[in-house]
Amino acid sequence: MILSAINHDQAHAEVYSSSDKSVTIRIRTAQDDVQQITLLHGDPYIWNDGKWQFTRSSMTKIGSDGIHDYWTVTIDLPHSRLRYGFYLQSADAFIVYTERGFFQEIPEHVAPFFCLPYLHAEEQFSPPDWVSNTVWYQIFPERFANGNPSINPDNTLAWGSEKPKVNSFFGGDLKGVLDHLDHLVSLGITGIYFTPIFKAFSNHKYDTIDYMEIDPQFGDHHMLKTLIQACHERGIRVMLDAVFNHSGYHFEPFQDVLKNGAQSPYKDWFHPHSFPLRPSDKIPNYETFAFEGTMPKLNTSNPEVKDYLLQVARYWTQHFDIDGWRLDVANEVDHSFWREFRQTVKAINPDVYILGEIWHRASPWLQGDQFDAVMNYPLTDAIQGFVLNNHSTKSFKESVTKHLFSYPHTVNHVQFNLLGSHDTARILTESKGNKQHVMLQYLMLFSMPGSPCIYYGDEIGMTGGNDPGCRDCMIWDEDKQDLDLLSFMKTLILWRKQLQPMGSVDSVQFHESGDDDVLIYSTHQENDFLIYLFNRGLTSAQITVPEHFKNEDLIDIVDNSLLDTQKPLIVSKESFRILKKAADPE
Amino acid sequence: MILSAINHDQAHAEVYSSSDKSVTIRIRTAQDDVQQITLLHGDPYIWNDGKWQFTRSSMTKIGSDGIHDYWTVTIDLPHSRLRYGFYLQSADAFIVYTERGFFQEIPEHVAPFFCLPYLHAEEQFSPPDWVSNTVWYQIFPERFANGNPSINPDNTLAWGSEKPKVNSFFGGDLKGVLDHLDHLVSLGITGIYFTPIFKAFSNHKYDTIDYMEIDPQFGDHHMLKTLIQACHERGIRVMLDAVFNHSGYHFEPFQDVLKNGAQSPYKDWFHPHSFPLRPSDKIPNYETFAFEGTMPKLNTSNPEVKDYLLQVARYWTQHFDIDGWRLDVANEVDHSFWREFRQTVKAINPDVYILGEIWHRASPWLQGDQFDAVMNYPLTDAIQGFVLNNHSTKSFKESVTKHLFSYPHTVNHVQFNLLGSHDTARILTESKGNKQHVMLQYLMLFSMPGSPCIYYGDEIGMTGGNDPGCRDCMIWDEDKQDLDLLSFMKTLILWRKQLQPMGSVDSVQFHESGDDDVLIYSTHQENDFLIYLFNRGLTSAQITVPEHFKNEDLIDIVDNSLLDTQKPLIVSKESFRILKKAADPE
Repeated sequence: MILSAINHDQAHAEVYSSSDKSVTIRIRTAQDDVQQITLLHGDPYIWNDGKWQFTRSSMTKIGSDGIHDYWTVTIDLPHSRLRYGFYLQSADAFIVYTERGFFQEIPEHVAPFFCLPYLHAEEQFSPPDWVSNTVWYQIFPERFANGNPSINPDNTLAWGSEKPKVNSFFGGDLKGVLDHLDHLVSLGITGIYFTPIFKAFSNHKYDTIDYMEIDPQFGDHHMLKTLIQACHERGIRVMLDAVFNHSGYHFEPFQDVLKNGAQSPYKDWFHPHSFPLRPSDKIPNYETFAFEGTMPKLNTSNPEVKDYLLQVARYWTQHFDIDGWRLDVANEVDHSFWREFRQTVKAINPDVYILGEIWHRASPWLQGDQFDAVMNYPLTDAIQGFVLNNHSTKSFKESVTKHLFSYPHTVNHVQFNLLGSHDTARILTESKGNKQHVMLQYLMLFSMPGSPCIYYGDEIGMTGGNDPGCRDCMIWDEDKQDLDLLSFMKTLILWRKQLQPMGSVDSVQFHESGDDDVLIYSTHQENDFLIYLFNRGLTSAQITVPEHFKNEDLIDIVDNSLLDTQKPLIVSKESFRILKKAADPE
Repeated sequence: MILSAINHDQAHAEVYSSSDKSVTIRIRTAQDDVQQITLLHGDPYIWNDGKWQFTRSSMTKIGSDGIHDYWTVTIDLPHSRLRYGFYLQSADAFIVYTERGFFQEIPEHVAPFFCLPYLHAEEQFSPPDWVSNTVWYQIFPERFANGNPSINPDNTLAWGSEKPKVNSFFGGDLKGVLDHLDHLVSLGITGIYFTPIFKAFSNHKYDTIDYMEIDPQFGDHHMLKTLIQACHERGIRVMLDAVFNHSGYHFEPFQDVLKNGAQSPYKDWFHPHSFPLRPSDKIPNYETFAFEGTMPKLNTSNPEVKDYLLQVARYWTQHFDIDGWRLDVANEVDHSFWREFRQTVKAINPDVYILGEIWHRASPWLQGDQFDAVMNYPLTDAIQGFVLNNHSTKSFKESVTKHLFSYPHTVNHVQFNLLGSHDTARILTESKGNKQHVMLQYLMLFSMPGSPCIYYGDEIGMTGGNDPGCRDCMIWDEDKQDLDLLSFMKTLILWRKQLQPMGSVDSVQFHESGDDDVLIYSTHQENDFLIYLFNRGLTSAQITVPEHFKNEDLIDIVDNSLLDTQKPLIVSKESFRILKKAADPE
């Protein structure tokens, strides 16, 4: 056995609970190295004849990432306490793995075993139930629709009259969203994520001037209330964007420090290194977002700042009945602030979804005490890698497996899955205009654990490169919309709502296709199975039905036909098939 | 390369900082597998020509545990942010290791790299400075000295008249400690850890009746103040024991629940499963410490309980000027409570030492937001393993290395190191009466990073098995004290104070002795080196001076003689030598 590869580090993806009487334990070993693992586990205080009493439970190998195999088991925890170790067997050897390393036989004393001292109810990861069933739609308010020209900012351009520049204004507003809710209802989405709507300087509003005001070009408090109520009446949840890492240049406290330097009562609201502040320096003499002098970093460990920002969170959560907060640059704000943020908003409404903007691995924020989920860009990269960048099916399998095992499945179920955002090029542009590839990617996104999001306009075939390209005005002229794509997206959302194992899956199983352009995986929830086949290639593919499903009755989701599993299965070029295992007769 | 063994999981022992402008990064690889590792690191926002800009820093291999090699490097962090990856080289290959796995060449984009998003000053681990220079002495007040017979409890036995039983009382009290401070001053200790002194039922006082009162058999508030002041005048710090996991049976709120069941206003102070409570059941129908019905678990997530216990902590910290809190059964109390506990006591006095009772790996509590240290029983086991249980020098080296690398060195420096306590048999008894072995073990304890503790009476050769044996009355009759041992312990404490690299060491280096009864390691702090040789065997050993030191001028600490490093070095049976590298001429 490759002992150096055996790892159980008690990080949150390897010991976690989704109920107060059970716990999931995972371990990883070198790929194809260990044949069987038995978890040895018991309450630390149950002894007999001077020996610790333990139970044995078989672990299941449920994935491989090319380097490691991943094993898991969920066990009951009658007294909230656990000591445990691993009994590993290969073809010709066995060994016991504990916190104190490896033993040739099972230790009699409990001391070396791994310890979960006490499972506290409040330390369980418990995201809102509704999230995993939600299909999101991201709106960049300045560019979705102009419903009230009377509040247009100066120099507003005619809607869609030109490609957006960094400083363009087109007059999009909240009334515009209200006016077009029919589009969203007909599309079928059930949640809107709005990029910031509070008073700010730029068109993107990530440089806040006043956290307590709606930006006057978007509307007012009354308009937001009306819009949220209209959304709720249509079964659509609303998530706002909180920009708490930094303020804007025109935020009054920052202006005061600019003006009064060391004499400003607000100097400790930021992180000045010296005075006067020099916003135009290449590296400003105060902490900023990146090196951007117009985005001064807020000092969230200053109790005044903390109180102010928590009051902001409390105000909008309490008085506007919002359903979620997306937290900008969340990884650069201290954990202690986010813990208080969670306590604050969950005390008002435990069903609020807390979503952090974190592009890298986010375990420290997903322990149950801070966020419910993060923006799942690593999944975006894996999907684009296979469909657009010619990464192998093996590579896709491995990166998705590695990624899913870096979080508890409870986290995976509520991750915010996306193909693009206001921070990336649009998926149709990334796909070099290949609409089929866009469909494949959205289907992959919708098939995975988590709640998927559509970036406004993707559903009608909008294009655009990186910022500012991806922030073009929404196209409302049906003649200019891609109605085929729109129809596909509606179907996709319908599938997601109707097919149980789509999205809210227990695990993703990969299958050999024999063709590197064809990716096959299946997902299941209890006894319901869905098999997905994706052909990114330029030619039609003939696939053998995976051995695992050969003797099953499989139904094609698209035309509801029963499949002849003895015949080769055709997957058209740049297309997909979805097969469902027919229900067993009762 | 054994890719499956390469691991950097961003847990707190693998990325940590001890100042706000630098960070230490560690990684582990299979033992003897990788020849060189270079850290690639830079600020995520510094780009040039579309490429992320990074620096290269060589990592140092500083330990092996028989399975893994451990590597480390400390780098500057000018802008508080870091992205990083590892460039690993073996004899015939190289590979780049990132958060997204392995790459054959250095990725151009920053996305796959590990991320330390922002180093917040308040998230650094910053224990009190004084701890690493402290030598502790643990006192079990009922058994140290009876200074005021007028407050003896009922049925008090004559001091030392018989071996202690589970329910014996001998009348030890705070005045007794005050009366014997001279003994402690002459011994040289600089900190006292008192097991609980608050009003309780048993002789050990871990079953609290009133957290706001001194136990009347020990004294009163005034007596405690007097004692603490007397200690402080003598340069001795005082640490109290907080038993917050559970109360005693006679704690008033618990009595109320026993009496009034579901109608009690205190029912949510505990974790009842049903009413009436059944304390005598083998498994009581409420949560307890272990299955002990007389120790009902407190509900520390109930705000009333939290407020009460934090008020207790505040009261004794503020009004009695104590220097530390030892937290009983700390691992079974929720993290959120301990975070508030830390904020509460550190707000009063940032120099208070917070020590958790945790016997297993304690990383989740040692992130800087909860405890400063834990009771370091794994080190106890390693030391006893070598001296008493015939574990090999290799096994000692491996378990100590593995243990030291499971925490940041900043944590290791303030760990509470001990050979025994009121919860274990005494070290002389564990050593089957072999005093020489006790000396070896205390020297090993004192040589390691952390602050060592002497269990009362160990210094004069007291014996005793597990509770109640180890809780015997302190022997004050000099004729019955082992004065040789006492003299050794005084010398040991003096060495610890005078020899720089003893205790406050940067790392522990192991050296081959060629004799499995002889353990050799060296510690250093900057350019000062100490070499320790321990011979547990029954015969004298002849050792070659480790190659590394052969050309150095080495001085024997005991007789201050210069060593002839070309000759064999004699280490007497069951004895030790300590060599010091002579200072380089300036």
